[in-house]
Amino acid sequence: MSPGRPNAVEAAVLAANQSFYDAFEAGDLDGIDAVWERSDRAVCTHPGWGTLRGWDAVRASFEAILRGGTPGQFIVTAADVDVTDDVAWVTCDENLWSEDAVGTVAALNVLVRDPLDRRWRLVAHHGSTVHAHAPDE
Amino acid sequence: MSPGRPNAVEAAVLAANQSFYDAFEAGDLDGIDAVWERSDRAVCTHPGWGTLRGWDAVRASFEAILRGGTPGQFIVTAADVDVTDDVAWVTCDENLWSEDAVGTVAALNVLVRDPLDRRWRLVAHHGSTVHAHAPDE
Repeated sequence: MSPGRPNAVEAAVLAANQSFYDAFEAGDLDGIDAVWERSDRAVCTHPGWGTLRGWDAVRASFEAILRGGTPGQFIVTAADVDVTDDVAWVTCDENLWSEDAVGTVAALNVLVRDPLDRRWRLVAHHGSTVHAHAPDE
Repeated sequence: MSPGRPNAVEAAVLAANQSFYDAFEAGDLDGIDAVWERSDRAVCTHPGWGTLRGWDAVRASFEAILRGGTPGQFIVTAADVDVTDDVAWVTCDENLWSEDAVGTVAALNVLVRDPLDRRWRLVAHHGSTVHAHAPDE
């Protein structure tokens, strides 16, 4: 990210990134649809999962997860963004807060700018649980 | 990736991606130095770790890991790449094989093309262990 406050493009990327978590938190599948690039190249790795490839598989995973209820609050911290041309990548911490669990998921998200409507959309998401202690493996 | 065989640009990205794993497997810090963009925006998330930001922190992590010995064989499968202008992102499975452990790490890597030497270099790496069963969280 440029030093200090994000510039206008960086702010637009961060807003799209945040809207993904807002939609997930709200159990809003339409919102998830809206922020993802619904293409064959969409890829998603949930914590502990193998990588899902293609929008159909990615979308089905969110549908299945939300069928079990919303995962709780996503409090996003440490969001940082880099932009090169029409591609951006964001690192952030997803701090989960619910009745069942608290924990932090580190995420790397890739977003691309749609050539038609110029909106930023997620094309790759990888989240993994941050362990308090290094795992044995 | 374009259908069928990768085109020349995709092949160059995949070769850079592979050279990272080859260097890691060989315990070759010079090779790791060569394939990373050694900049403040370099980011790296090892399985179970929080995200490391900046080349100094990223480099130190590889140095520390390799001080404990090489992690074993990295057999990279399911590598897929997308390229937009001078940014590429790769998903792949890192299949680890050593005396101590076997397992699969799913990875999302972002590479950028250096404007001067036109070589592709890693700027973001996120790996997470694929669990045989969904974790409780």
